[in-house]
Amino acid sequence: MFPRLALGRLLPSRSRLSPPRPHGKSFIHRSELKQAKRIVVKLGSAVVTRGDECGLALGRLASIVEQVAMLQNQGREMMIVTSGAVAFGKQRLRHEILLSQSVRQALHSGQNQLKDMSVPVLEARACAAAGQSGLMALYEAMFTQYSICTAQILVTNLDFHDEQKRRNLNSTLHELLRMNIVPIINTNDAVVPPPVPSSDLQGVNVISIKDNDSLAARLAVEMKVDLLIALSDVQGLYDRPPGVDDAKLIDIFYPGDQQSITYGTKSRVGIGGMEAKVKAALWALQGGTSVIIANGTDPKVTGHVITDIVEGKKVGTFFSEVKPAGPTVEQQAEMARHAGRSLASLLPEQFSDASIICCLAELLTEKKDEILTANKRDMEMATSSGRFSQALINRLSLSSSKLNSLAIGLRQLAVSSRDSVGRVLRKTRVANNLDLEQITVPIGVLLVIFESRPDCLPQVAALAIASGNALLLKGGKEASNTNKILHQLTQEALSVHGVSDAVQLVSTREEVEDLCRLDTMIDLIIPRGSSQLVRDIQRAAKGVPVLGHSEGVCHVYVDSEAAIDKAIDVVRDSKCDYPAACNAMETVLIHRDLLRTPVFDQIIDMLRTEQVKIHAGPRFASYLTFSPSEVKSLRTEYGDLECCMEVVDSLQDAVDHIHRYGSSHTDVIVTENEETAEQFLQQVDSACVFWNCSSRFADGYRFGLGAEVGISTARIHARGPVGLEGLLTTKWVLRGEGHTVADFSEQGSMKYLHENIPLPQGVFS
Amino acid sequence: MFPRLALGRLLPSRSRLSPPRPHGKSFIHRSELKQAKRIVVKLGSAVVTRGDECGLALGRLASIVEQVAMLQNQGREMMIVTSGAVAFGKQRLRHEILLSQSVRQALHSGQNQLKDMSVPVLEARACAAAGQSGLMALYEAMFTQYSICTAQILVTNLDFHDEQKRRNLNSTLHELLRMNIVPIINTNDAVVPPPVPSSDLQGVNVISIKDNDSLAARLAVEMKVDLLIALSDVQGLYDRPPGVDDAKLIDIFYPGDQQSITYGTKSRVGIGGMEAKVKAALWALQGGTSVIIANGTDPKVTGHVITDIVEGKKVGTFFSEVKPAGPTVEQQAEMARHAGRSLASLLPEQFSDASIICCLAELLTEKKDEILTANKRDMEMATSSGRFSQALINRLSLSSSKLNSLAIGLRQLAVSSRDSVGRVLRKTRVANNLDLEQITVPIGVLLVIFESRPDCLPQVAALAIASGNALLLKGGKEASNTNKILHQLTQEALSVHGVSDAVQLVSTREEVEDLCRLDTMIDLIIPRGSSQLVRDIQRAAKGVPVLGHSEGVCHVYVDSEAAIDKAIDVVRDSKCDYPAACNAMETVLIHRDLLRTPVFDQIIDMLRTEQVKIHAGPRFASYLTFSPSEVKSLRTEYGDLECCMEVVDSLQDAVDHIHRYGSSHTDVIVTENEETAEQFLQQVDSACVFWNCSSRFADGYRFGLGAEVGISTARIHARGPVGLEGLLTTKWVLRGEGHTVADFSEQGSMKYLHENIPLPQGVFS
Repeated sequence: MFPRLALGRLLPSRSRLSPPRPHGKSFIHRSELKQAKRIVVKLGSAVVTRGDECGLALGRLASIVEQVAMLQNQGREMMIVTSGAVAFGKQRLRHEILLSQSVRQALHSGQNQLKDMSVPVLEARACAAAGQSGLMALYEAMFTQYSICTAQILVTNLDFHDEQKRRNLNSTLHELLRMNIVPIINTNDAVVPPPVPSSDLQGVNVISIKDNDSLAARLAVEMKVDLLIALSDVQGLYDRPPGVDDAKLIDIFYPGDQQSITYGTKSRVGIGGMEAKVKAALWALQGGTSVIIANGTDPKVTGHVITDIVEGKKVGTFFSEVKPAGPTVEQQAEMARHAGRSLASLLPEQFSDASIICCLAELLTEKKDEILTANKRDMEMATSSGRFSQALINRLSLSSSKLNSLAIGLRQLAVSSRDSVGRVLRKTRVANNLDLEQITVPIGVLLVIFESRPDCLPQVAALAIASGNALLLKGGKEASNTNKILHQLTQEALSVHGVSDAVQLVSTREEVEDLCRLDTMIDLIIPRGSSQLVRDIQRAAKGVPVLGHSEGVCHVYVDSEAAIDKAIDVVRDSKCDYPAACNAMETVLIHRDLLRTPVFDQIIDMLRTEQVKIHAGPRFASYLTFSPSEVKSLRTEYGDLECCMEVVDSLQDAVDHIHRYGSSHTDVIVTENEETAEQFLQQVDSACVFWNCSSRFADGYRFGLGAEVGISTARIHARGPVGLEGLLTTKWVLRGEGHTVADFSEQGSMKYLHENIPLPQGVFS
Repeated sequence: MFPRLALGRLLPSRSRLSPPRPHGKSFIHRSELKQAKRIVVKLGSAVVTRGDECGLALGRLASIVEQVAMLQNQGREMMIVTSGAVAFGKQRLRHEILLSQSVRQALHSGQNQLKDMSVPVLEARACAAAGQSGLMALYEAMFTQYSICTAQILVTNLDFHDEQKRRNLNSTLHELLRMNIVPIINTNDAVVPPPVPSSDLQGVNVISIKDNDSLAARLAVEMKVDLLIALSDVQGLYDRPPGVDDAKLIDIFYPGDQQSITYGTKSRVGIGGMEAKVKAALWALQGGTSVIIANGTDPKVTGHVITDIVEGKKVGTFFSEVKPAGPTVEQQAEMARHAGRSLASLLPEQFSDASIICCLAELLTEKKDEILTANKRDMEMATSSGRFSQALINRLSLSSSKLNSLAIGLRQLAVSSRDSVGRVLRKTRVANNLDLEQITVPIGVLLVIFESRPDCLPQVAALAIASGNALLLKGGKEASNTNKILHQLTQEALSVHGVSDAVQLVSTREEVEDLCRLDTMIDLIIPRGSSQLVRDIQRAAKGVPVLGHSEGVCHVYVDSEAAIDKAIDVVRDSKCDYPAACNAMETVLIHRDLLRTPVFDQIIDMLRTEQVKIHAGPRFASYLTFSPSEVKSLRTEYGDLECCMEVVDSLQDAVDHIHRYGSSHTDVIVTENEETAEQFLQQVDSACVFWNCSSRFADGYRFGLGAEVGISTARIHARGPVGLEGLLTTKWVLRGEGHTVADFSEQGSMKYLHENIPLPQGVFS
């Protein structure tokens, strides 16, 4: 047969990896794992054999094989250390025993032996021998689907102690790797000493054989492996036994951290308890192999657990020799929440003249040169990288005047936000001496993710500070120098009141997706950037609310009684003022009566003059003899000098069109008929509804909210442009004199009054 | 060998199904599919062979085998119609051709033939022949893991036309099923006529052979199969080509609906376009087999698509001969939204005297006898079923006096809610003749899921009506008669203003999980029931916010300066008034200074008298010589006459404990020191914080909110007890005279004023 090596060179998907890291140094960051060339995947017996509700072990095994095959076909050298032959053989032998027992049962009919028969006693080494061939056949059949050859290697730990045997094994494995074959390694259970009984395989009195954790670790070091992935039925290493209050999965484990761990009892299957796994992992790490312990049985991740790990995602526990400087993002969130609580408790006076926000405004002016120098460095790197558009580089740029207006904005915010926190919204006398207040409080910890524009940072920080919220900021890599100094200045301002930890800048190395999963630490996520960013975050955020909107399909409806000049002005401004904005018009709806009137012609002429490309809606197209391109979808957000034009029969028709194809963002009517206008404003179910003015007014600044964190199209909490108020929630404070609910029962002595106590200042502003 | 039948009887997981339905009648509801005994699973070639990013075809195939094996082991008779041999053989043959070509390349070195080689031209029938054995070997290997035998059957459509051949096939298959063997059926591609070329297998110029849809349908009817599951790479049948605006997946398809469908172009792989699939499905349906077309390639569902279908979940498109009476739940949601918009637009006057809510209150009194008769029927059924606890039966029961107080509550709500919708919260003069208002509007469509208590229905309906929201109600089966009449009365009241569709009662047959997935139709889900129900719904709701709380771990902190009588009263009431409530106390925190004082002894005595079982927190336990049982977790919600007692050193210690172990629901301090109390009220970050009064006051009625829809521990939108306000959102209304944003630019003629216009009534109440 022609050597496989030649074929390997021909397969199109096989691309070469970058050269392997210098031997003897494990990786420091997960993000470096992409470079791992030689990888051992260790499958615990729970991974190979135990079924669960959502798909039994076979499907799990198949998707693991798929991932290994994919990585192998990327040019990596994959090895598998497998457990499971015992359980595999158990299944097979039980089958045979049941068969022979059912013969016996037929002979002894009348005696009920069913109970005995369902739990035949099997010897582990016999099971292993019987299972090994079936397991290998399965691996072989599966890998064949990816044109990958496998080879069976059976070893015992003793083989590593004998120098000659070790060399032999080493050269055999190297030869297999050279030929692009995936070695599948298992313990040679048939030749190990007789096992001690235990009952750790569910339901069957079977016996375990020596664990594979140390085997995998030895093999990894012997073969100078870059990465050892140990999969079992635990998520990774916890700081205390899982299930105990506050047990936390450790993301990165350093050898020095070992004292901080409390181990629990051993896992149900296999004898490799967590302590043994950690010991093996540290041994491999010392030998220069990076190690990850992760769950290979979780149906939610099985299909991509290995590839996720190699891509550097936060899965399981990563063992690293070097502790990087600075806190982890979880620690940052904890520090922020803590400092945020102090921030929220600062008395209103402390917010006033010498306030944090005023101080930050001051610093922006004072440290102007340093900021602009840092910004210049970011600009140069962005320009020289050649990866960014001019538009993005413009957004990245700061200037002296930009910093000035930023400072002015902050000072205004400092004034207007003076008593946003702790404001009483409602006061009720529940009963004599039992008074209830509903007061404003911060939401908690905000995560704001922003792209390119570094001027976002002080604005968002000021809004968070003004509302007493803690803040995690995740900026774009391209603005990292500017963001760093702006964050330093923010912390300097916060330190005036000893709460500098309340605003944290998250490392650019952190994946947005991983941040979104910190659901117990973050209360609200605010993405500021492209609609793609928002959509990605909405998808990634599990259990944490996301404030924002992913779409802005805004309409302008030109009624039959529209004033011609207003129609022209509003349509022009709505579409052309800034076509990329979410509040720009995408569809203009024209009342049928206007067709073939001067109004219609003038709108068309104006759009042509402004070089707006018109797409015709289906009804509009049917009226035309000439034909502009017809729309593909009436829900398109063009974000450019393009729009859709459609004809409607009536106000009701316009409203129905907006409800059907709109995104409930901002919709406008142009008419001189007040009654029609009020009907439109009442009926259209969007965050912003406008009469005779441009859709572009939908904006926090233009609404007079001061700064804005974004525009929300959600139907709960904040809707439309969101300023300070959207960052507040409420809490109920009840003050009594030992009141009990029993006092108010039918036999009780008290009665509910529920008197509304008027507030000194009632307007919600 | 011993016959497998005997073994089948022995395997513990094998349980017998109920007898098959009478032949020739397909199922009418998805929920009946659980009874399907004989099932054909048809796998399109996309399912068997095409890989995707999240796991290639092999893993998919393995999990399909697992599901089929599970159903087979439940005692069902499973058959598989498989495609994919062509693509399987293609893979194998391409491999061989590449090998031989690389030899040729070695001979002709210098000439670059790589491009040609990567796309060898393969003949489909040869591919099928080469692939068939590999595919069968794979099925065999996989099914063996579940102790299931398979058999290979190759047929052509012509075999069904020859009477003798058909009888032979029929008896062979029956014999296989009798022996508990899973037949795997494929077309005998090697003997069919030469195919016509096409290019529908990605990247390779290969040729398709006759589709398997009609084969599966023929087989299903011939074998009197109960259910045919046809899996391919589409979600099911859409009412128009997928991707077009508003294309909707059809849940249940009736033969008469065929005119309402627009078919798109054929799917990428295989020649079975959607039209052919529907034709085959209708044919099988006519023959008495129920059919479902679903996606077998979606990584999110692959692991359970077949078992979900058999469990009656809403997956793919279900073909049914009989159209059940009444609208689907999607139609109900649509009707409710539409009528809800009319409801919200009713002028305030229409809400007043002859209001819908007052009318409903009247009807509750007027139709008392009918309501109580229906309720009696539910009670009798619940009692005789023996499945319900006495507590639940009590909650199910209505009485004349309960109806009276319900009516009184509704009338109060009618008065207090008079202008909740359309209320102006903020008014700003943005510029001359450009005025902005923020007004209250309904959230939209609410889904309220409630258990047992039928008195929920009119309360929730009244709150929804008062806030102008549309409502979908899903009640428990045990209260179906009572709910039905209460809903009829609600609709009668709504019909006064022609909006009877605004409140819809969802069929008890609908699965809660399916309802939670209607994310484009429902704006807010409100579960009213056990914390388990809330948790389940929070898990199931994808993209729809859920208002509620799943935990209530409330604390009472007895400070060192607590008054003894208040401490006793508050702790007793908080724990004992109604221990199962979410606002009952779970942990009492005692200041260290109180240990071995009379206060401490009296609290202990009181709890003993009230028969409250005390669990000691770790610090408390360390102080004790006698030892009550120690807590397992400081986060336990006992919901019974049990509580945890723990010692704290200080106010700060108490606050830290509450933040760490509490659920941010309701927390109480008992102290005479006002300063300490205010610190507690300020620092504790819970929805409700109380001073010297019972935690049981955390309740919408006791707070004076009128009715409540629940208590929220969310940090956005509504927090704490939620009344009418929590069912409202806002919209921004801007009225201008042709204003454009350009007018306000540096060159423009206008300036922003942002004047706050005072409101006549400012209190948010």
